[in-house]
Amino acid sequence: MAWSPRRLVILGATGSIGQQALAVVRAFPERLQVVGLAAGRNVDLLALDIATFRPAWAACQLEAHDALARACEGTATRITSLEGLAACPEADLVLIATVGRAGLAPTLAALEAGKTVLLANKEVLAMAGPLVTEAARRHGGRLLPIDSEHVALWQCLQGEPSAATRLILTASGGALRDRHPSDLSRVTPAEALAHPTWRMGPKVTVDSATLLNKGLEVLEAHWLFDVPLEKIEVVVHRESIVHSLVEFADGALKAQLAVADMRLPIQYALSYPERWQQPWLPPLDLARLGRLSFEPLDEARYPCFRLAREAAARGATYPAVLCAADEVAVAAFLAGDIAFTDIPAAIEGTLAAHHAVAIPSVEDILAADAWARRWAHEHLPIRQAALPIHA
Amino acid sequence: MAWSPRRLVILGATGSIGQQALAVVRAFPERLQVVGLAAGRNVDLLALDIATFRPAWAACQLEAHDALARACEGTATRITSLEGLAACPEADLVLIATVGRAGLAPTLAALEAGKTVLLANKEVLAMAGPLVTEAARRHGGRLLPIDSEHVALWQCLQGEPSAATRLILTASGGALRDRHPSDLSRVTPAEALAHPTWRMGPKVTVDSATLLNKGLEVLEAHWLFDVPLEKIEVVVHRESIVHSLVEFADGALKAQLAVADMRLPIQYALSYPERWQQPWLPPLDLARLGRLSFEPLDEARYPCFRLAREAAARGATYPAVLCAADEVAVAAFLAGDIAFTDIPAAIEGTLAAHHAVAIPSVEDILAADAWARRWAHEHLPIRQAALPIHA
Repeated sequence: MAWSPRRLVILGATGSIGQQALAVVRAFPERLQVVGLAAGRNVDLLALDIATFRPAWAACQLEAHDALARACEGTATRITSLEGLAACPEADLVLIATVGRAGLAPTLAALEAGKTVLLANKEVLAMAGPLVTEAARRHGGRLLPIDSEHVALWQCLQGEPSAATRLILTASGGALRDRHPSDLSRVTPAEALAHPTWRMGPKVTVDSATLLNKGLEVLEAHWLFDVPLEKIEVVVHRESIVHSLVEFADGALKAQLAVADMRLPIQYALSYPERWQQPWLPPLDLARLGRLSFEPLDEARYPCFRLAREAAARGATYPAVLCAADEVAVAAFLAGDIAFTDIPAAIEGTLAAHHAVAIPSVEDILAADAWARRWAHEHLPIRQAALPIHA
Repeated sequence: MAWSPRRLVILGATGSIGQQALAVVRAFPERLQVVGLAAGRNVDLLALDIATFRPAWAACQLEAHDALARACEGTATRITSLEGLAACPEADLVLIATVGRAGLAPTLAALEAGKTVLLANKEVLAMAGPLVTEAARRHGGRLLPIDSEHVALWQCLQGEPSAATRLILTASGGALRDRHPSDLSRVTPAEALAHPTWRMGPKVTVDSATLLNKGLEVLEAHWLFDVPLEKIEVVVHRESIVHSLVEFADGALKAQLAVADMRLPIQYALSYPERWQQPWLPPLDLARLGRLSFEPLDEARYPCFRLAREAAARGATYPAVLCAADEVAVAAFLAGDIAFTDIPAAIEGTLAAHHAVAIPSVEDILAADAWARRWAHEHLPIRQAALPIHA
């Protein structure tokens, strides 16, 4: 049987999601074909993937351009811009697996070219939900999720003619869920990066520990599924087996369950509406798991979650400022410059200082982003040395 | 907005499922209309429901016919046979909520008249799966489930173009799940009827305690969803919140969850493909539930489950004999004539003595049923008095 392969472009190919997407392509070589790969600065790894997948196009950040040109010498791979890659005529599917604002312009370019965009980047919809969904509508592009939670919601909504009355996103609680709150100011980057169930990039893993991540996912679900923010809830589920649930008016809930492995939701998005036999994992054994636990989310423990919900409710340029301030604060925390508990303080201060644009254009959003980065950076708290203990 | 109401016939109207179906009709008076009601011998309750719902038709067992005629005097309700009721021209939906073999002939009559049959009776498909599904196919009738487990599977399969790789039925474990096996021979009918999570009729409740029930549900799922028996599993789930799960080739599972209240699956079957706002229950609160537990099914503890799976695998007239012997044995247990642990012994003996018909007609099935009732009754063990304890 001859398959017409789905032609895929990956932006953020050298990151965690990008590499796992390439693992899915490797598992289904007759059904998926890589036609474009882009990375930031990790050109060594990108060059390896170019040699393996022989894409028509490649792209990277400007400062790594020369290295990429050398890597492509003697191959059929041509170099283009991120936006050019996202809109390249060879592509059916464009996976946006970059982190932070870098995904926004390529997402818009892909949608404007009528592509199906698989969105792993949480910030794109959070920053610019109205613009992104409008671009998809206007140009016949399509937005599909990659996040395990949103892929779960998407699966639960299949074949349902009725609207959901509630979306319930599950949250593992992150790496620090069992640390005493009074202890959080002393958390090291290594501790915040030790996620109990998911293997992800550093920025996303810290966002999981603060639960800012989950706030962005609420916003993402709102835009992807057109459900009001107040109908989107979060419940703590330590095992990361139930990836999210949908409730309907008749009292029924549907849940999607799977082993916590990002290759599975990536594969679903790449194979949709088909389901392909996954080659990696044994079947989920509920009896062996024994239990699935659910706890209310303690918002006092996770101030970043509250800030994200507040920014979401206020709309305008606040979510963009939230994302930008978080990028600066998380980078500073990972560099050892600020404490874990300084992250929400930095975000809250930046949001409070922001003069919002009510109905922003892309330029307004990028301007708010740039302002917030500058402001957050300049106002980062100075880390206090631990006080000497007096007897 | 004017609704054209769905016109409903209920067989077994005075039983647990029948009464809960009437509660659903009462909640949606503009969307559901009762056009026929039938009961066995409880004509007093049937007469009340006839006065409330004013159906065009009523039916009952022959020995209660005179009483029903008196109840219908002065009303517009006419009396007919069970089969006549099931095939009456006024009906769109026919709910078969009788217990045991009594549902078979009306189910076939309704399907042959092209009706949509909502099947609450587990024995009908277990006894005569090939004949019932073939009758539906040939006459354009439709078979829908009412059981919470099958309604859950049905919901999880909505909108899925791929076949299921596994159906996982959940089982509460029944009223005796925590009794020591050596203690089961002393169980009283009252103890076997104390179901931890579901309110049901006595026969079904005892079948839940032996898990014969779950064996019949495996067979039912096999015929309803065309999934091979060996791909249908059972897991013990004490909370009765997850009503069943479907697994797909890509490693994803979908589960349906709801409060354990039969009005919800009945409403789904009556409203399908719509979902109507249920008026009875607060939303399911996962965080308040705290946990959902799953345990492997200990088949040694539940010999009736093993017997049901074996009868299912052998096919022919064995499942009919299983159901008939179980009806006799459960009635004898409820009457105090045999011990709880005699139920599987009675079924196993009857199955062993049976000369099966390989590809049975309806008549063959009814003959096997009649033979099995006689044989099981004649060979019921004589209850042994408890042995005196010697010091």
